[in-house]
Amino acid sequence: MTNQGTNLDPWYDSYADRTAGLSASEVRALFAVASRPEVVSLAGGMPFVSALPQERVLGSIEKVLRDNGPMALQYGSGQGTPAIREHIMQIMALEGIRGSADNVVVTTGSQQALDLVTRLFVNPGDVVLAESPSYVGALGVFRAYQADVVHVAMDDEGLIPESLRETIAALEAAGRPIKFLYTIPNFHNPAGVTLSWARRLEVLDICRSHGILVLEDNPYGLLYFDKPAPQAMRSVDDEGVIYLGSFSKTLAPGFRVGWALAPHAIREKLILANESATLSPNSFGQFVITEYLDQTDWRGQIDTFRHLYAERRDAMLSALGEYLPKLSWTKPDGGFFVWVTLPDELDSKAMLPRAVKELVAYTPGTAFYSDGQGRQNMRLSFCYPTPEFIRTGVARLATVINGELDLLRTFAGAGLTAPIPTRPHVTTPPPNIL
Amino acid sequence: MTNQGTNLDPWYDSYADRTAGLSASEVRALFAVASRPEVVSLAGGMPFVSALPQERVLGSIEKVLRDNGPMALQYGSGQGTPAIREHIMQIMALEGIRGSADNVVVTTGSQQALDLVTRLFVNPGDVVLAESPSYVGALGVFRAYQADVVHVAMDDEGLIPESLRETIAALEAAGRPIKFLYTIPNFHNPAGVTLSWARRLEVLDICRSHGILVLEDNPYGLLYFDKPAPQAMRSVDDEGVIYLGSFSKTLAPGFRVGWALAPHAIREKLILANESATLSPNSFGQFVITEYLDQTDWRGQIDTFRHLYAERRDAMLSALGEYLPKLSWTKPDGGFFVWVTLPDELDSKAMLPRAVKELVAYTPGTAFYSDGQGRQNMRLSFCYPTPEFIRTGVARLATVINGELDLLRTFAGAGLTAPIPTRPHVTTPPPNIL
Repeated sequence: MTNQGTNLDPWYDSYADRTAGLSASEVRALFAVASRPEVVSLAGGMPFVSALPQERVLGSIEKVLRDNGPMALQYGSGQGTPAIREHIMQIMALEGIRGSADNVVVTTGSQQALDLVTRLFVNPGDVVLAESPSYVGALGVFRAYQADVVHVAMDDEGLIPESLRETIAALEAAGRPIKFLYTIPNFHNPAGVTLSWARRLEVLDICRSHGILVLEDNPYGLLYFDKPAPQAMRSVDDEGVIYLGSFSKTLAPGFRVGWALAPHAIREKLILANESATLSPNSFGQFVITEYLDQTDWRGQIDTFRHLYAERRDAMLSALGEYLPKLSWTKPDGGFFVWVTLPDELDSKAMLPRAVKELVAYTPGTAFYSDGQGRQNMRLSFCYPTPEFIRTGVARLATVINGELDLLRTFAGAGLTAPIPTRPHVTTPPPNIL
Repeated sequence: MTNQGTNLDPWYDSYADRTAGLSASEVRALFAVASRPEVVSLAGGMPFVSALPQERVLGSIEKVLRDNGPMALQYGSGQGTPAIREHIMQIMALEGIRGSADNVVVTTGSQQALDLVTRLFVNPGDVVLAESPSYVGALGVFRAYQADVVHVAMDDEGLIPESLRETIAALEAAGRPIKFLYTIPNFHNPAGVTLSWARRLEVLDICRSHGILVLEDNPYGLLYFDKPAPQAMRSVDDEGVIYLGSFSKTLAPGFRVGWALAPHAIREKLILANESATLSPNSFGQFVITEYLDQTDWRGQIDTFRHLYAERRDAMLSALGEYLPKLSWTKPDGGFFVWVTLPDELDSKAMLPRAVKELVAYTPGTAFYSDGQGRQNMRLSFCYPTPEFIRTGVARLATVINGELDLLRTFAGAGLTAPIPTRPHVTTPPPNIL
C-alpha cells in the first residue's frame, strides 16, 4: 500500500479486520450533548460524585503520600495490590461471595475486565449471549472482538430462562460456538430490572449443563433502594462464573479501578492479558481507595448514595406518572436507570434531535441492541441530575413526545402517511421488560 | 464443551486462539525476585520516583480536589482532557514536534497505546518489524495479537537501514503484509543505543517508500545525559509516524498516563478503541499531572532525574570496567539500560538462578527477542539502585560470571563437555550492538 493521496486516510487499507466493529457509540455523541449546561441530561450514567466527602478523600491521599508515596507513584503488580484485593473480598462478601483474594484481578475499571475476558475467549464469529437489551459498552467490546451477539429476552424478573434454553438450543443446532452469557443481574443497565433468585439458579443450571461460562457484571448491586438484591450468582458457582465489580459507582470512576473475580485458571490468563494491555492498573488509585476503605465509614457513604439515588428514582417515576401517564416504564429497585417504552408509532432515535432542541437528552434504545431493535425504547438515567432537574427533564420530554404524537395524528387525520420511520415490529418483537 | 473434570481448567477448550501468544514474561518473574530486599536488582525498569518532590505532588492534588474535585473524580473523555493534551504538545515541542493537541490520545500508560495501535492494525499472521533486540512489553503485545515479529539488526547507531531494506525486500518477495515498524530511537530498551539523525531520515524514507507505518516509542527521550538525542522522527513526518510518549519516566508511572500522537484518521480510531477498552483514561491522574505541570518547574525536575540517572550510568560503566573488563557493553547517553554481551560459552538465561543465589538480578537477553536469540546477552538497569548498590550488584555479577567461566574451564580441562547449553551461534547470529 502506498500513499496515493486518493483517500483522506492514507492508512485506509492497512487496518485490521476487527476495526470494522469499531464505531462511535451513541453514548459517546451524547456525552458531548450532555455537557452543555442548559440541557437536562437523562442520558449519561455518571455517578453523583459531588456527594463524596472530599475532605476524607484528600485525607486518604495525604496519608498515602506520607506513608507509601514511592510505592503509590510506582509501577505495581499486574494483578493489583494485595491490600485492595482483600478489601474487594470483603465488599463481595456483602453479596454472599466467598473466595480467595488470590483470584481477584484489578483492572482499569470493570470496562477493561470486560475487554480482557472477551479477548481471552472470543474468536471472530463466536457467539456471546446478552440480555435484550444490554449494556452499550459491553456490546461495543463484543463487536470490537468480532463476536456475534445474540440477545436473550427479558421480562420484569430479568432474563427469561425458557428463552435462554431456546436460544442455546437453536445455536447448538446450527453448530455455533457459544463462549459466554453476559448478564447484569442487579438493577440492569439499561432495563432497570433485577434477576430473581429462582431464575439465577435456573440460569446457572442451564449454562452449566451446556458448558457456557457466565460473565456476571455487577456495578450497581450495592446501590439498592428498598431491599438488597438477591445474592450474586458467583456466590453459588465459583467455577462457572466470572464476576465483575467496580469502585466507579460506589466511590468514584475517576480512579478507573474495577476488578474481576475469576476461576483460578482463567484468573492466571487475565493477569497476563492485563500486563500485556497496561503493565499494571494505576497504583495511585489503588492506594487511595485502600486508604479510604481503611479509614472511612464507606458503608455509610454507600447508604448516602443509596438514599440520594432512591430520591431521584422516586422523582423520575412520579414525574413520568404525572407527565407521561400513557407510556410504560420499569420500576428499578436500585441502580441508575429506567427503561421507557414509547407508543408504537414513535422512534426514539429519530426523536432525539428534537428532544435536544427542547433541552433534554436521553439514550435511544437502539444503543442497547446489536440487531437494530430499540427504536421504541429510551433509557432515562436518574443518577446525575437533582430531583428538580429530573422533573424539568421529564416535563420537557413530555412536550417532545406529545408534540410528536400530535403531529402524527394531524398527518393521520389528513390521510398522509406518518413522516417518522417506524420499527419493523412484527419480524423483531420488542423486548418484554415492562 | 462440558466440565468433565479431566483437566485442571474446565474452560481449557474455550479460549480464543490468540491466548496461545499469552505467556508469562521473564520480566514478570523478575519483578517477584527483585522485590526481595537482599537482592540487588539490575533487572527492572522502575524509575526512581523517590526523587520526586512529594510535597509538590501533594500540593497539586490539594488544588485539584479544591478546584476541580467532581470532574477529577468523574468519568472523562476517551481522548483525555484538553488541558493535559495541550501540555503534551509543549513537552513534545522539546523534541521538535509540531502539531495539534486534537491528534493526541491519552492512554493508560503508553503500554496501552501500544496495545491499541496493534489492535487497530494487526490481523493474525501480519508482520511487525522490530529492532533486534526490542522492548519485552511490546513483543508481548504483538504476540497477543498474533503478529509475526521480524527483528531488524542494530549497531551502535541504532537500527541499520540496510538491514531494514533487506528485511522488507525479503518479506515483500514472500508476499507477507508488513503493518508497521516498531522502534525506540532514543536510549533504546534494552540496547541502550540511539538512532542517529541521518539514519532517522533514512529509515523514514525507506518506510515511506514501502507504505509502512512507523511506531516511534519514546519514553526516555528527555532523560539524556550529555547531550539531547536527535529530534523525534515524528518531527519530520506527521502522516507516516505514530509517536508514543509517557509520564511514567519523567514524572511517575503510578498514575498510568501515557499518550499517542497519531495521524488524524488513525487518531479517530484510537479514541474509539480507547473508549471500548477502558471508557476513558483515569481523570484523577490527568488532573493531577496537569496541575503539577502548571505549578512546578517540571523541566528542572527532569534535570534532577537526568543528573541522578547519569551518575548511576557512570557507576555502572565504571563497575563493569573494573569487575568485568573482558565483557563488552553499550554506553548509553540517556535512559535506563546497558546491554551486555557475555563470552560465547555463557548462557544468560541458564545463569540467572545462580545470579539470584548471589543476590543480584538482571534480565536475560532472551526476553527481548521473539525468535530465541539473546542467550549471550543481558540487560542491566541502572535506574533504580543507588550507585553504591550498582557497584555491589556488578561485583556480585562478576563473581557469578567468573565462577561460570572457571567451571567451564575446569570441565574443558578434564576433557568433559560443558554442562551449560550454548546458543546456536551460527544459524542465529547475535545482534551487533556493541
